[in-house]
Amino acid sequence: MRSVSVIGIGETKMGKLPDQSLRDLIQEAGVKAIQDAKVDKNQIQALYIGNFNGSQLVNQSHVNALASEVLGLGSIPTIRTEGACASGSLAFRQAYIAVASGLYDVVLVGGAEKMTHQDTNTVTSAIASAADAELEVNLGTTFPSIFAMIANRYMYEYGDVRDAMATCAVQNHNHALLNPDAQLHKKIDIEKVKAGVPVADPFTVYDCSLVSDGAAFTVLAATNVAKQYTDQPLIEVIGSGHAGDTLTIAAKSSITTFRATVNAAEEAYRMARLSPSDIDLAEVHDCFTITQIINIEDLGFFEKGKGAKAVLSGETTFGGRIPINTSGGLKAKGHPIGATGISQIYEVVTQLRGKAGDRQVKNAQIGLTHNLGGTGATCLVHIFKKV
Amino acid sequence: MRSVSVIGIGETKMGKLPDQSLRDLIQEAGVKAIQDAKVDKNQIQALYIGNFNGSQLVNQSHVNALASEVLGLGSIPTIRTEGACASGSLAFRQAYIAVASGLYDVVLVGGAEKMTHQDTNTVTSAIASAADAELEVNLGTTFPSIFAMIANRYMYEYGDVRDAMATCAVQNHNHALLNPDAQLHKKIDIEKVKAGVPVADPFTVYDCSLVSDGAAFTVLAATNVAKQYTDQPLIEVIGSGHAGDTLTIAAKSSITTFRATVNAAEEAYRMARLSPSDIDLAEVHDCFTITQIINIEDLGFFEKGKGAKAVLSGETTFGGRIPINTSGGLKAKGHPIGATGISQIYEVVTQLRGKAGDRQVKNAQIGLTHNLGGTGATCLVHIFKKV
Repeated sequence: MRSVSVIGIGETKMGKLPDQSLRDLIQEAGVKAIQDAKVDKNQIQALYIGNFNGSQLVNQSHVNALASEVLGLGSIPTIRTEGACASGSLAFRQAYIAVASGLYDVVLVGGAEKMTHQDTNTVTSAIASAADAELEVNLGTTFPSIFAMIANRYMYEYGDVRDAMATCAVQNHNHALLNPDAQLHKKIDIEKVKAGVPVADPFTVYDCSLVSDGAAFTVLAATNVAKQYTDQPLIEVIGSGHAGDTLTIAAKSSITTFRATVNAAEEAYRMARLSPSDIDLAEVHDCFTITQIINIEDLGFFEKGKGAKAVLSGETTFGGRIPINTSGGLKAKGHPIGATGISQIYEVVTQLRGKAGDRQVKNAQIGLTHNLGGTGATCLVHIFKKV
Repeated sequence: MRSVSVIGIGETKMGKLPDQSLRDLIQEAGVKAIQDAKVDKNQIQALYIGNFNGSQLVNQSHVNALASEVLGLGSIPTIRTEGACASGSLAFRQAYIAVASGLYDVVLVGGAEKMTHQDTNTVTSAIASAADAELEVNLGTTFPSIFAMIANRYMYEYGDVRDAMATCAVQNHNHALLNPDAQLHKKIDIEKVKAGVPVADPFTVYDCSLVSDGAAFTVLAATNVAKQYTDQPLIEVIGSGHAGDTLTIAAKSSITTFRATVNAAEEAYRMARLSPSDIDLAEVHDCFTITQIINIEDLGFFEKGKGAKAVLSGETTFGGRIPINTSGGLKAKGHPIGATGISQIYEVVTQLRGKAGDRQVKNAQIGLTHNLGGTGATCLVHIFKKV
């Protein structure tokens, strides 16, 4: 398998974008990535796109063909991948494998979702289709209720982490203040989080990620041809890991650690020949505040049961041991589901290029993305390095 | 890229299966394929599954995680692919690339769809999501109406092919009589086709493929390790091609030839170092009778404009130049959308193993599958050879 690098990135603003349809979002982000990579679109040999649920949200399946037409890509092969909230990074990994194998030299990889035009019940139901329809959703299960159970179990096992959960939200909101693409630019504090509108105990609305429109794209190229196109620093994919777990929460061996994360991370670290302490910054899947705490433990950044303390002591924000979700994360940058995995990569590439402006992590050399689908059922971890 | 072979296959019956949910279909076909391959399920390193629209049809997205749980596959990486009616073979190609690249040695690839519990309007609308929601479906477009336009245009360019279209249906029904997994076991004739309930001129109900429940799975392995598992003949993947086209019909350069088919076939033939005349049998995507005629021309089996004549003269059934859709095809075996591409491979592998019973094509050595999504917008062609 040969070396592969990211040579172009593009994304839309995230948020409530009533003037942009799914096709418009794809067009904006796709064109930005192609222009950023300085490739001619005729040089793109394949298109991979993550979309979670255009079928229910905009009555649009077959989003790969839509994207190809909108971007004028002719007759190239295209594919849509789906794995709930991990749909975008599933596309990225398939594209990575195809380029690494030698099949293609230059490919376009994106993700997109249009959500905010639907009412809350429709969106909640569409998202719930990522859980088990027969065994969970038929009983009234939604994702806030599942992850609230996880939060309660976590606190049963490891003690009260309510303030640390709230602090994840506060930090991610602070980070988003520095990201022009973020959906929310709103400073909050721990008390505001805890006093928010209740969603599912212990969550208030501030513990939950956002409903968003958005799209993000990257251009991937074999590293040995990448220098033909770009004069920016190459950002090499040095680790790629992918693992899964049962769909239902009832069948899992633990719900306070996600083995899909542990196994995907192990594969990515092994490939990169790195350990968690080598990572300078990470975008992790903060669908709920408790998930961020579990993730930073499962990824090995902090010991099991010590994630909350690390958050409270500032280790996960600027100046700390490892800044987490400098983009603002799903919590404050936004969570257009199919786009999220690619938008995480957008942020890490921007940081490694040294182009993150006021939110730049100093001397960032190695970054990690972690994208989780469903109740920890599909997980992808990628590690990037400035060449 | 190293050689890859199919070492196991399994499928459900196709049809109206009210006692089987999506999970039941996946379980039955998946277990059959694993048992046929004689692999221990712990040896399976990844799962790829095609599903078109579980989201709208059974409120189930994230079908990859469902399948992994149902089949007891633990923490392996899983992925769902979607590209309308080509969803199954998209999964197959991604799996093929991953094994050929050396990433995995043994993978499970399936497809599944549950459709028949829904009323006709719901199913028609769910299928229509494979066309352009904004530019086509909003105007009332459905797939029967699109392909009826294509049939009329074809007859404008090449003359009356009504009897040949009807003969495609007759032949596929005849083939299905010999396939125990087929949905329909019903002999018809040209007059019955033409006198059927009108759907969209010139189509009657007999020109249209079926609404079906079903699942199909295959086990793929690197050829150099395959002999560890199976004592059956290895069926090698000697050609894989994938191409696309615009989503909308209005943007296509022609609607009487699908350039996605032409380009995917060209890639597959080039990789296999074969020409169309080397193919002994083929499963082609007969979503409508006119599509079968266009496909056998686009695949190079017959000259453009000569497909109808070949059908009428018996070249596409047993004893002819190249038996097409010996399974019964989408028309009579059935069309559980996400499963179709894998079920085509099931048929070709069965034929190449010499295990097709009363429908066996004599001395079949090389077979081809052709799977088409939307209005010719996503196409995959695979070529198989008995080693």
